[in-house]
Amino acid sequence: MQKVIFDTDPGVDDAMALLFLHRHPDIDLLGVTTVFGNASIELTTRNAQFLHKEWGIDAPIAKGAGKTLDPSRVEQHSPTIVHGEDGLGNIGVPLEIDWPLDPREASQFIIDTIRANPGEITIVAVGRMTNLALALQADPEIAGLTKQVVIMGGAFDVNGNVTPAAEANIHGDPDAADIVFTAPWNVIAFGLDVTMKTMMSSDDMAELAKGGDKALTLLSDLSQFYIDFYRQGAGLDGMAIHDSCACVYLVAPDLFKLRSGPVRVVCGGIADGETIQAPDTGRRFVDSPWDGQPSQKVAVGVQPEKVLDVIRVALTAGRPA
Amino acid sequence: MQKVIFDTDPGVDDAMALLFLHRHPDIDLLGVTTVFGNASIELTTRNAQFLHKEWGIDAPIAKGAGKTLDPSRVEQHSPTIVHGEDGLGNIGVPLEIDWPLDPREASQFIIDTIRANPGEITIVAVGRMTNLALALQADPEIAGLTKQVVIMGGAFDVNGNVTPAAEANIHGDPDAADIVFTAPWNVIAFGLDVTMKTMMSSDDMAELAKGGDKALTLLSDLSQFYIDFYRQGAGLDGMAIHDSCACVYLVAPDLFKLRSGPVRVVCGGIADGETIQAPDTGRRFVDSPWDGQPSQKVAVGVQPEKVLDVIRVALTAGRPA
Repeated sequence: MQKVIFDTDPGVDDAMALLFLHRHPDIDLLGVTTVFGNASIELTTRNAQFLHKEWGIDAPIAKGAGKTLDPSRVEQHSPTIVHGEDGLGNIGVPLEIDWPLDPREASQFIIDTIRANPGEITIVAVGRMTNLALALQADPEIAGLTKQVVIMGGAFDVNGNVTPAAEANIHGDPDAADIVFTAPWNVIAFGLDVTMKTMMSSDDMAELAKGGDKALTLLSDLSQFYIDFYRQGAGLDGMAIHDSCACVYLVAPDLFKLRSGPVRVVCGGIADGETIQAPDTGRRFVDSPWDGQPSQKVAVGVQPEKVLDVIRVALTAGRPA
Repeated sequence: MQKVIFDTDPGVDDAMALLFLHRHPDIDLLGVTTVFGNASIELTTRNAQFLHKEWGIDAPIAKGAGKTLDPSRVEQHSPTIVHGEDGLGNIGVPLEIDWPLDPREASQFIIDTIRANPGEITIVAVGRMTNLALALQADPEIAGLTKQVVIMGGAFDVNGNVTPAAEANIHGDPDAADIVFTAPWNVIAFGLDVTMKTMMSSDDMAELAKGGDKALTLLSDLSQFYIDFYRQGAGLDGMAIHDSCACVYLVAPDLFKLRSGPVRVVCGGIADGETIQAPDTGRRFVDSPWDGQPSQKVAVGVQPEKVLDVIRVALTAGRPA
C-alpha cells in the first residue's frame, strides 16, 4: 500500500482523481489537503467535504492556503468557465456540508504526516503548490523524509493554458512552485505535455456511469459542465483528466516517459509561471539559475489509452455488484 | 532574383551563409550589415571585409551596432570557445583589411535600401537583432515596405543554447528581438528547433573543399575550430549550420514546416531572451501580451538532408571547372 496525501483544489478533474485514489486497492489515502485554485479555498474545502460525504471517504481533510505565497501578487479570478461557479460543474452543492475538518492547517498536516511516516509518504499535488511551499518553509527537513512528490502542473515542451507560457497550477503561484521544484526531494511533474493527451470522451464517461454506481453517477453529473467547456472552447469531445493522469503514475509508472533535470519556474514578466527544465543529458550551461539545483523528473511521453484503462478499472473497482 | 540584405556577425556559420548567398544564382546580395555577437563589432566587421576580399564579393558592407539596444544591459563575453578569438576559427585573419566600408550606419543602410526597393527586400538576419530594431525605431514605415525578414534565432519547443531558455542571437539582445517580432512585417524565424537538426559532418565539409576551389578551402579551414567545438562540447561529428539553414528558406521554402502565431521575447529574469509563440491554431488566451501582435512564422520542422543538398549545390556552383 502506498501512503498518499492528496493536495487538491476540487475542481472537476480533482474529483475524479480523489475517487481514483480512494478506490484503488494499492493506495492508502492518509489525508486530503485543500488549496485555492479551481475555486476559492472556501469552495474547494467545502467541495472536498461534499465529495468525502457522498463517497464515504474517511481520510481527514485539512484546509490550506487561500492565497499565493507572495501576498503582493495580484489575485486571479477563479476559472469558473472551466469548473463552474461552485468548482464542481454547477451541480448545486449545498452551501455547508456537515463533515469534519482536521483542526490543523494543511501545511502542518503535511509536516505531521510525513514525520509520522518517514520515507513513506507520496504527496500528490494537483493544485497550486502553496501548501507544499509553506510546509517546506516551516520544516525544511521534510524534504528528506518524503518518498516522492507527484504533481500535476507545468508545460515543458508545449504551450501553457493560462498564457502561451504557463499552465494554470503553476501560474497560480509561481513562487511556491519554484520552491517545490528546487527542494531536495523527488518531484515527478505531469504537465500539459502529457495531460492534454489523456482525454476521456463523453461516451467513456457515460459508460462509466451506466452501471448504477451512485458515486460514478455523481462524477458524471459534475463532469458535464467541464466536458462542455472542452467541446465549446476547443472543439473536443471529452475532457483532459489532468489530475487523474498524475495519479496513475503511482500504480503504473511504466506508462510514462520521464526526463530528468533541474526545473525552475519563471516568476514575473510575460512568462510568469512558465516551467523550464534543463535536461541532465542536454547541453551544459554556465552560471545558470538551474546550476546546482536537484534533478527532478518531468513526463514527456504517455500511453493515453492504457492510462484510461487503469482509471476505468480503479473507478469501477468499488462499484456495487 | 531575390534582393537580399544580409545582417550578420561573422562568425563561422555566418561565413558559410555569406558564401551561399553570394553564389546562389537566384539571390542578389545588395548589402551586408554587421552586428556584434559571435565577436565584437570591430572583429565581425573586419571579418566581413576579409571574406568579401577573399571571395570577391562586391556588395557593400555597412558597420552596425556594437552593443545592445538597452545600454544598461550587462555586456556579455563573446563566444570565443565556439568561433575562436578572431570569430573565424583562429585562422589568423590580418588585423586590418584593405576593403571599403559603406559610410552609413547599418541601420541607415537598411532603411535606405528598403526605401529604394519598396516591397522587394528580404532581410536575412543571423546575429543579434539590434540593427533591425534601430532601423525600425528610426523609420517605422520600413516594416510595411519590406518583403520579409528571415531570421536565425530563437528556441521555441526546445531548450536554448546559452541558457535552458534562450538561444544566443535572441539572448544577446532580447529587447531588440521583441521589437523585430512585434513589428508589422513578415518574420520567419529559424530557431534551434530546426537548425540543430541541420548538421554538416566533417566529411561533408572535407568533400566540399576537395575540388581545389580556394573559397571552399578557406571555408573549410575556418570551420575546423567550430567543428572541434561540436566534437568536444557535444560529442557530435559535424557542426550545426544555423545561418545557412535560414538562408535555404529563400530558395527552398518547401523544405520547412512553419507554424503561425505572435511571438514575444522574454526580457529579464531567468528566461531572459526566451522566444515564446502563441500559435494561431491553439488555445485562446485572455489579456495576454501576445494579444493583437502580428502573426509571425516559426520553423518547427525541416528536411535536413535536402537542406544540405541545396547548400552543397549552391556552394559548389561558383567553383572553377
